[in-house]
Amino acid sequence: MAIEEYLNRKKEDIGRLLVKCPDRPGIVSALSTFLYEHGGDIMESTQFSSDDPTRMFFIRIEFYVKDLLEKRGQMERDFKPLAEEFQIDYKFSYNDRRKRAAIFVSREIHCLLELLWEWQSGDLDMDIPLVISNHEVARDIVEQHGIPYYYIPANKDIREEVEAKQLKLLEQYDVDFIILARYMQILTPNFVARYPNRIINIHHSFLPAFIGARPYERAYERGVKLIGATSHYVTDELDQGPIIEQDIERVDHRNNVASLKKIGQRIERTVLARAVKWHIQDRIIVKDNKTIVFQ
Amino acid sequence: MAIEEYLNRKKEDIGRLLVKCPDRPGIVSALSTFLYEHGGDIMESTQFSSDDPTRMFFIRIEFYVKDLLEKRGQMERDFKPLAEEFQIDYKFSYNDRRKRAAIFVSREIHCLLELLWEWQSGDLDMDIPLVISNHEVARDIVEQHGIPYYYIPANKDIREEVEAKQLKLLEQYDVDFIILARYMQILTPNFVARYPNRIINIHHSFLPAFIGARPYERAYERGVKLIGATSHYVTDELDQGPIIEQDIERVDHRNNVASLKKIGQRIERTVLARAVKWHIQDRIIVKDNKTIVFQ
Amino acid sequence: MAIEEYLNRKKEDIGRLLVKCPDRPGIVSALSTFLYEHGGDIMESTQFSSDDPTRMFFIRIEFYVKDLLEKRGQMERDFKPLAEEFQIDYKFSYNDRRKRAAIFVSREIHCLLELLWEWQSGDLDMDIPLVISNHEVARDIVEQHGIPYYYIPANKDIREEVEAKQLKLLEQYDVDFIILARYMQILTPNFVARYPNRIINIHHSFLPAFIGARPYERAYERGVKLIGATSHYVTDELDQGPIIEQDIERVDHRNNVASLKKIGQRIERTVLARAVKWHIQDRIIVKDNKTIVFQ
Amino acid sequence: MAIEEYLNRKKEDIGRLLVKCPDRPGIVSALSTFLYEHGGDIMESTQFSSDDPTRMFFIRIEFYVKDLLEKRGQMERDFKPLAEEFQIDYKFSYNDRRKRAAIFVSREIHCLLELLWEWQSGDLDMDIPLVISNHEVARDIVEQHGIPYYYIPANKDIREEVEAKQLKLLEQYDVDFIILARYMQILTPNFVARYPNRIINIHHSFLPAFIGARPYERAYERGVKLIGATSHYVTDELDQGPIIEQDIERVDHRNNVASLKKIGQRIERTVLARAVKWHIQDRIIVKDNKTIVFQ
Repeated sequence: MAIEEYLNRKKEDIGRLLVKCPDRPGIVSALSTFLYEHGGDIMESTQFSSDDPTRMFFIRIEFYVKDLLEKRGQMERDFKPLAEEFQIDYKFSYNDRRKRAAIFVSREIHCLLELLWEWQSGDLDMDIPLVISNHEVARDIVEQHGIPYYYIPANKDIREEVEAKQLKLLEQYDVDFIILARYMQILTPNFVARYPNRIINIHHSFLPAFIGARPYERAYERGVKLIGATSHYVTDELDQGPIIEQDIERVDHRNNVASLKKIGQRIERTVLARAVKWHIQDRIIVKDNKTIVFQ
Repeated sequence: MAIEEYLNRKKEDIGRLLVKCPDRPGIVSALSTFLYEHGGDIMESTQFSSDDPTRMFFIRIEFYVKDLLEKRGQMERDFKPLAEEFQIDYKFSYNDRRKRAAIFVSREIHCLLELLWEWQSGDLDMDIPLVISNHEVARDIVEQHGIPYYYIPANKDIREEVEAKQLKLLEQYDVDFIILARYMQILTPNFVARYPNRIINIHHSFLPAFIGARPYERAYERGVKLIGATSHYVTDELDQGPIIEQDIERVDHRNNVASLKKIGQRIERTVLARAVKWHIQDRIIVKDNKTIVFQ
Repeated sequence: MAIEEYLNRKKEDIGRLLVKCPDRPGIVSALSTFLYEHGGDIMESTQFSSDDPTRMFFIRIEFYVKDLLEKRGQMERDFKPLAEEFQIDYKFSYNDRRKRAAIFVSREIHCLLELLWEWQSGDLDMDIPLVISNHEVARDIVEQHGIPYYYIPANKDIREEVEAKQLKLLEQYDVDFIILARYMQILTPNFVARYPNRIINIHHSFLPAFIGARPYERAYERGVKLIGATSHYVTDELDQGPIIEQDIERVDHRNNVASLKKIGQRIERTVLARAVKWHIQDRIIVKDNKTIVFQ
Repeated sequence: MAIEEYLNRKKEDIGRLLVKCPDRPGIVSALSTFLYEHGGDIMESTQFSSDDPTRMFFIRIEFYVKDLLEKRGQMERDFKPLAEEFQIDYKFSYNDRRKRAAIFVSREIHCLLELLWEWQSGDLDMDIPLVISNHEVARDIVEQHGIPYYYIPANKDIREEVEAKQLKLLEQYDVDFIILARYMQILTPNFVARYPNRIINIHHSFLPAFIGARPYERAYERGVKLIGATSHYVTDELDQGPIIEQDIERVDHRNNVASLKKIGQRIERTVLARAVKWHIQDRIIVKDNKTIVFQ
């Protein structure tokens, strides 16, 4: 195949298969042969065998099939017996439809701005059907991007009422996943259960250090020499969900709380954007409250 | 002054002055004028004014005085009225005598090896009069370096007895500070009180994450994406002393506990060696359970 | 002095003194005493003595003087004899007027966007009186920020004519320094001579690797494992001016030229913004085609 | 398969297959099915398709076969038709024999020490049958490790004579690859041709910056803000071979040539050790004077 042909493959003809099953010999052979027999060309493949007692096997395969969207129905039907044989938990994913992300934000908008920026420049291949906020701060910038902005005041006393409104909007806009871009409200288990491993939060510390409120203040008081940020999926336990990505920057005694926050904002926006990108590309698998990230 | 003269200044003619006092105008003028009038040439100077309610001023000055060792007595006497006027808490430090470090080690010797290596290659300008261990593992390598090795079995039931032996040795060898190079025993408050801000520990996590035992196991279970190490002065509260230095390395889902430990060892030895070097050079000031490090 | 008073010091009462002179004992004493006698409180001070044959001394002092703007005339007059005695090359700098930066940009606008972002959020304490470009790409975003945008088509055949227009604008807008935010035209020696050490460029490689055109293509061909960006002052020799700041990111065999560029853009915008910030704060001194950066 | 069984797999039963061939659909299927049919369990697999006009496919598979060493002969014979069909350039690699590395060193021994250290602690799974040097500096430390040390004085006038002696020793000791651990002599094309992509050098700069001699001096003169080191395979063109690994550290105006060298040594030893480890584990494929490193 000539390089031109390769580079000109249509995005719609590229699919992804994520697989999780008990590890045993022959899986790669079975999967790759299946794809080959369905006209597939494996473009990228990353795998992982856990060396703990569960002995699970994970693989993410990006493949090309000419006219994939027409053929996928048949392919998925054919895959079922194979999945059964190997006890595979799997997901096919296609490019005919971009994932739809709702962004939640409060008063600090640096993470939102980074997402809008990367989205606008084509780095985040998703739709942003709406932004929800408990403040009005971000309205102008969001609407300038042609995205509807919903102002829903929130506090812990009216949590259920607020979430009811939010859930309705999420349904109405057919949202796939939620990005908490410094949304400073805690979500109820009911809400979280609706989007399992589909709510991405950014926490402004290097977890598990400084779980909870005021992490920069506490980092300052403790006198740490590095500060960090952590992006994770939201679970019922505060700041305890599966970690997707973390990063840090060096600080020293000259930094006060304000300058720690400033430095931290740069880390937060980078870390969150990376996590979102990997989520969009189906690179993340959750296992035992941890993530496997296939980069 | 010609460059040759400058570069050939004798090490013995170089001193250091560490100052801590309430911040107020005129301090730098007073200190620098004092040094100038005593024949001093300021070679390096780093200062810090805390912007918290205590409003303290800190400065570390490295200075040259010809025939310093003869003149220091008079200089220190002359300094007293100045110190009183500005309420200065201060320390003069000279190069006629190298700081004497006792290294404590248990079974894992990578940090000890790094210290010996850097010491041998001239990077750590200190004496190592003895190594104390609750294991025999490191005897050969230590004795090859011509350093006495004391094997003192230890466990929590005989802590006081063990420490009595250790303290006697420390006194006998005229030790200035102690390096816990992965010494896996807890010290009593009595022992710690004898060497305030003079016991340097390396903790194998990015504090305050994973305080206490088995940090790599817990980092693995939590699924963090970065692991770290922390060097700090020892206080009575476990892993709560003033942090001197920290660093991290990136890890991912493929790392098991064993490989986390391997990666961590590299961080530990680097971080500890840096902290020791800064301590030797009087670059560290402790304030409110935090450190000011004048690099 | 109480902390409130300290934190509430007016920006206009804070000045900066940059000094360069032959190194000899007594300078710090003379400078700090001078400031003290003029009612000054030293808030930050960083110094450096070169250990090469020139033996020069450099210091940057940030100081507070109540009603500085009224007193500065007298202070500067009084400083002259001191400057003469120590052969000091110096600069006083005040906060009554923000530095005025002209941004030059071509087709790629990521660096411009970063500068606008940080400027808007208060991180870059400067005025941007105008943006000049040889393309129309950035007009909308610039004008949305209320900044005049000048489109001046450029190519090497009409260089002098183009620069004449630019220089006229720079004069008209009273510009202090120029930021080449990926402005892909070479400037003539005549232009450069008008703004010595006041034109900041971002080069999209880790200089001195890949001087000149197409650095990402050449990095790809060479198979480097890290790519970088360099911010430097512009001199007559292409990409040879004093380096202000550099940074890098890790890449691997999977990166093609397009993805190298993408990664590089993130480095470029960060590195340029840092260099600009240091320039604004008078933290950079040029010596022998190198920079001393007082952070 | 239970986890115990998995973790207790004998090292001798684990093999590696490296493949390079024109990219086309069906390769992964063919390879994985081949291995499966020969009793293989794929433990790790990493692949790469070049998106340049050559359109090559590369894969590194680590696999387990019970009693591999007995079965490998048959397996390799069976592989030949497959290799022919897909035009595969391949290599099987087994664990019955450790790769044998000769280390060449001159006066600076920090890289040698790092290699000995990591080798001793089990991190470098190779044999070191001999060390060759044009100086006597490292004799003691090498012989303490039970490794023969050959002192062969060298300079450019007697290059061929010296290399004749070296080549004889390399043959005599059955050496697989050569590590130039700061060996400051240039090798002739004749020598290099004997060990294609099997001579690993460490160059003390961030290539392609500062090719050739005195890189730290030149880095100092240029005033760079980061210094680096590069490990690469040796080819006939000086410092132009395929880059395996690079890393950098931050420096500033306070660093003179001596301190740059000190900092650089730490980078050099880390970078070289990483490159050697990847070489031992057959993780490196050379393509067009670049490396694919399967981590």
